[in-house]
Amino acid sequence: MSEASPGRLRALMQALQRLPGVGQRSAARMAYHLLQHDRDGALQLAQALQAAVQGVRHCALCHTLAEDELCPTCADPTRDATQLCVVETPADQAAIERTGVYRGRYFVLMGHLSPLDGIGPDDIGLRPLLQRLQTAPAVQEVIVATNFTAEGEATAHVVSQLARALGLRVTRLARGVPVGSELEYVDLGTIAHALADRH
Amino acid sequence: MSEASPGRLRALMQALQRLPGVGQRSAARMAYHLLQHDRDGALQLAQALQAAVQGVRHCALCHTLAEDELCPTCADPTRDATQLCVVETPADQAAIERTGVYRGRYFVLMGHLSPLDGIGPDDIGLRPLLQRLQTAPAVQEVIVATNFTAEGEATAHVVSQLARALGLRVTRLARGVPVGSELEYVDLGTIAHALADRH
Repeated sequence: MSEASPGRLRALMQALQRLPGVGQRSAARMAYHLLQHDRDGALQLAQALQAAVQGVRHCALCHTLAEDELCPTCADPTRDATQLCVVETPADQAAIERTGVYRGRYFVLMGHLSPLDGIGPDDIGLRPLLQRLQTAPAVQEVIVATNFTAEGEATAHVVSQLARALGLRVTRLARGVPVGSELEYVDLGTIAHALADRH
Repeated sequence: MSEASPGRLRALMQALQRLPGVGQRSAARMAYHLLQHDRDGALQLAQALQAAVQGVRHCALCHTLAEDELCPTCADPTRDATQLCVVETPADQAAIERTGVYRGRYFVLMGHLSPLDGIGPDDIGLRPLLQRLQTAPAVQEVIVATNFTAEGEATAHVVSQLARALGLRVTRLARGVPVGSELEYVDLGTIAHALADRH
């Protein structure tokens, strides 16, 4: 920020700008805040960063972030190995888990395709997914549960192609009117999909 | 974020939330980004945090953040010791320095009073400012250059009272129409101030 900033302060501001969504001004505000009011928080963050970099890796099966070879979900032998639900993030996986209706296995891509942001096939877990599908003979159905955004749909397209090329059954989460909503307030695209997918 | 997050990942997300303006969702996004795409950046940030906490302190004279006993500006013997310009942040000081028209000394409060956010007199450098004014007999004029926001004006009021109680001359940056602007597009409060302060 200031040209007169001491070297260590400037280095901290530059390092903070490597966080997504943090620009020059936010980085300065964060650095001032930590050094003025929360030096304990700064040291705690430093230790948490080092501990996470050392101890967090990808689950060997589902590609989510885990501390052991396998994440708790993949280590659970009671999960149904014939279904594989592909999601974008651990948060999406957690949302599905909270419903309590899915007992199959997961694959977490850790992102979505977004060419405009420079996120291509090699930046998300597409290669590990292909490997998983090739080495897991029990899988019969791939449930594509990426988000219903432009990026999520593009990602779903590629995932579906991968799975179909291996002769697997591919399904996608149903689009439709959210539970508890009134038609008057639902957007037209959603109603159109709900009409087309009526059963 | 996710209940299934490994402990180190959850600890990192919690530590990131100590940064101002970072909530649960941003913290999760930052943690995933660092562990997925920028582990070097994470380690660099950890080191920058530790180095700053160890090596950055307040300048003994002007209260800004500095690596030595005195910041470069206070260590400069050619600056005019009769004028003391009180600013909120190092960024504000840098803005005044860029004009090249001020050769006096500074005091950096490192914040502004904001009771609603729990920022009281002891959270910004008002006590060190009082001490500075009491122990710097050369100071004749205190130039209050806090921001023209509600918080900046409240801070200016307190700083002015402090300085006047010590018998010092207190001035405030002029409010008025910004250079290069057309009156038609200037807000009414600014025009009213510019009228009142006409000379």
